[in-house]
Amino acid sequence: MAAGPEPVHWLGKETLRVSAALFAENRRRLCQGLRAKAVGTKSVVLLQGGEQKQRYCTDTDVLFRQESFFHWAFGVTEPDCFGAIDVDTGKSILFVPKLPESYATWMGDIYPKEHFKARYAVEEVEYTPDIADVLSRLNPAVLLTLRGLNTDSGSICRESSFEGISRFQVNNTALHPVIVECRLLKTDMELEVLRYTNKISSEAHKMVMKHVRPGQKEYEMESLFQHYCYTRGGIRHTSYTCICGTGTNSSILHYGHAGAPNDKTIQDGDMCLFDMGGEYHCYTSDITCSFPANGKFTADQRGIYEAVLKSSRAVLAAIKPGVKWTDMHRLADRVHLEELLKIGILKGTVEDMMKVHLGSVFMPHGLGHLLGIDVHDVGGYPEGVERIDEPGLRSLRMGRPVQERMVLTVEPGIYFINHLLDEALANPTQCCFIHSHVLARFRGFGGVRIEDDIAVTADGVELLTCVPRTVEEVEAFMAEPQKDFSPVVGGEML
Amino acid sequence: MAAGPEPVHWLGKETLRVSAALFAENRRRLCQGLRAKAVGTKSVVLLQGGEQKQRYCTDTDVLFRQESFFHWAFGVTEPDCFGAIDVDTGKSILFVPKLPESYATWMGDIYPKEHFKARYAVEEVEYTPDIADVLSRLNPAVLLTLRGLNTDSGSICRESSFEGISRFQVNNTALHPVIVECRLLKTDMELEVLRYTNKISSEAHKMVMKHVRPGQKEYEMESLFQHYCYTRGGIRHTSYTCICGTGTNSSILHYGHAGAPNDKTIQDGDMCLFDMGGEYHCYTSDITCSFPANGKFTADQRGIYEAVLKSSRAVLAAIKPGVKWTDMHRLADRVHLEELLKIGILKGTVEDMMKVHLGSVFMPHGLGHLLGIDVHDVGGYPEGVERIDEPGLRSLRMGRPVQERMVLTVEPGIYFINHLLDEALANPTQCCFIHSHVLARFRGFGGVRIEDDIAVTADGVELLTCVPRTVEEVEAFMAEPQKDFSPVVGGEML
Repeated sequence: MAAGPEPVHWLGKETLRVSAALFAENRRRLCQGLRAKAVGTKSVVLLQGGEQKQRYCTDTDVLFRQESFFHWAFGVTEPDCFGAIDVDTGKSILFVPKLPESYATWMGDIYPKEHFKARYAVEEVEYTPDIADVLSRLNPAVLLTLRGLNTDSGSICRESSFEGISRFQVNNTALHPVIVECRLLKTDMELEVLRYTNKISSEAHKMVMKHVRPGQKEYEMESLFQHYCYTRGGIRHTSYTCICGTGTNSSILHYGHAGAPNDKTIQDGDMCLFDMGGEYHCYTSDITCSFPANGKFTADQRGIYEAVLKSSRAVLAAIKPGVKWTDMHRLADRVHLEELLKIGILKGTVEDMMKVHLGSVFMPHGLGHLLGIDVHDVGGYPEGVERIDEPGLRSLRMGRPVQERMVLTVEPGIYFINHLLDEALANPTQCCFIHSHVLARFRGFGGVRIEDDIAVTADGVELLTCVPRTVEEVEAFMAEPQKDFSPVVGGEML
Repeated sequence: MAAGPEPVHWLGKETLRVSAALFAENRRRLCQGLRAKAVGTKSVVLLQGGEQKQRYCTDTDVLFRQESFFHWAFGVTEPDCFGAIDVDTGKSILFVPKLPESYATWMGDIYPKEHFKARYAVEEVEYTPDIADVLSRLNPAVLLTLRGLNTDSGSICRESSFEGISRFQVNNTALHPVIVECRLLKTDMELEVLRYTNKISSEAHKMVMKHVRPGQKEYEMESLFQHYCYTRGGIRHTSYTCICGTGTNSSILHYGHAGAPNDKTIQDGDMCLFDMGGEYHCYTSDITCSFPANGKFTADQRGIYEAVLKSSRAVLAAIKPGVKWTDMHRLADRVHLEELLKIGILKGTVEDMMKVHLGSVFMPHGLGHLLGIDVHDVGGYPEGVERIDEPGLRSLRMGRPVQERMVLTVEPGIYFINHLLDEALANPTQCCFIHSHVLARFRGFGGVRIEDDIAVTADGVELLTCVPRTVEEVEAFMAEPQKDFSPVVGGEML
């Protein structure tokens, strides 16, 4: 009768409570999807969670992040688990490691099975060494394991394996397409978490915009972003390595990695392109803000920025269920070309420019991608949907029509990338559209990207990201007298 | 004639300049060591650097951290490299990936070989696909690859492999013991980096001590530590996952992992045990501060803290070249037992307690470990040195005599871990020493660890860590009116 409190994942204070019911609903949807595909009675899904890894051959543990499919279905924060779901009944069994007594000394309390049962709201908890026996008792006609292609990485996901699996009939092809389609469309509870990660990450971006000054290092902004996300939002992982490009670095699309580690000094006059997002309970965000380091746009910076903003807003206005994502990409290209024509970098007609894919010279990446438990979320190219092999479009991570409950990034950008500009100038079909003496002025400018996260609604979009976007908003926001950021929560932080 | 500026790894501002000469000296020492072992002429060392990894099957790059042996020899920050060293001449060849043109768009400038040659001060740079051909031209009698046991993890390090390796005579046993002995003793240049990581990490600990307040979450302190290290010190990686245990969590030796993620609210009256260290250019630090969350020790907290401090200081005073590390561990145990006797938790004679290993009930871990490019650095148990299979000592990560130029942690601790206390009370040889009614008062106390990093000198130690240590120092430091921490470097931060 008296049910205990609903189990939630919660990091205290103002952080979000994520109910275990979110994952129960995901499992229900998965079973529905599998039954709709007529997988046959007595099918049991078996997913393997991520394993605790070490740095190379040492005993230094790498901070664990759960594997995404397993997280989607079980919401479990610990490593080295498995989960089974009986497709007929929806009953779920979580398998947790049998921990040695020394764990209590080194790692903390060894919880009984009941603890995990309550915490994760599953029907049963067993120990991983008992998997084969426990599954045998279910007497499944077939175990559905996960094997399939990630269309962004080209990698195949790792299939479950355990000692004794040879006792079972295994089907490793049926599960992947169904679970991917489930992950494609977000539930209300999932949308709530994505709103939260966007809210915290948006606030962190604003904190960075308030504190950026010429003379600082790019990585100081990365550090501040991460600190804000964690200390205020309980966000321990970023969704991807922070990209803090300033000056010419702002045209390097995935700047910030170990070979280019956000280590330039920010200069007066630089454009900043900061692409950073935090994740909470593995739900990601992906936001880019572009702005002048000194808080005031030059005429050229304003011109390029407003061109990108115009395409961003045109796309946001056009998205609704049924539109082709490839058309949205082309729309962004078209707006960019129109604006670059007005600025005087280009000449000729936009129609002719589109024919030679001139847009991809300035925006070599795709317009945006699905977002969820992976920052490049799964489902962009299901069986039967092919990439369009054209410059720009071939980098688009989703090729299907937009549907309600998709969450997507909209991230148009204009970049001045020397080797792409040189290629275009050397290309007789493209160079005729370029005023090379005007273009020369933009060499070294870097780039502008404006990236928002959106949820597709029944008739349009819900904008999840909330940061200053117009030139006037950005300048006004950055001009406000700086308020000190105190890391002490409990005091006033903003 | 006019030599360029000395190549350094530097993150700007007040961060440390680490000369490429550090790694050249390491390579020289390695060749010397190999020649002393008579590996034979025309031997060539081949090391493989770490690879860029992704999260599971996705395309989300995990922030790269170089493999430690390769870093020690080459100091290269980029992934996917190899390095060869001609043992006779000391000549070094760095192999870097041949990057596709698209790299320039997505990841940044594609540098010519000369760039890497200058940056890393190696004699030659080639592309990785050419390894077999380039090595063939050296006509080596034998390639020395790295294979050997990490005595902390029990893992075997991954041996170099490349297409065409079958053309060569390979010896995979000679290199590991020699390079481990080289890494064991730190050069002056290496000590300089370890001093720096200790300085920044010490400052970050002090920042945390100044800002900790009951009501905060443990992870806020982790976040602040990391932010300080990165924004002030250019320290992007911690050496290990931050351990921010408060209250009873302070007795969980490796608290802070994904299953126990520093998520408790700090309470008035809690002891804090914060074990955190940053690494710069892969040189680590490992520091623990223990203090009351509210800034004032209770009588019991003072008693336990001063017991640990006494053992810490006794050990620091005793360390010098030639002493056995196992004896240092026993010394710490002995001081702990003497002090617990004075406090009234124990009764009887310390000699008798030592015979039944009573110290390990309160300090189940080893006294300390080697520190370097790995936080548990290599070399603790070379061939012929065996672990002592006794409680406590069997967890000691180094079993050999102390030598000048070793860098070690000294980290005695006293913990009240329920299941260990219960075991001791149930053990007839141990329970007779315990005043169980006094001990009962300390259930839930948590633990105290005081961890410093030291370099062994010709006649003693150099203390690398600099944080308040006595009860009076800690209380005075925490009582100072709080100064705001501004994340804006350029303003006053402390």
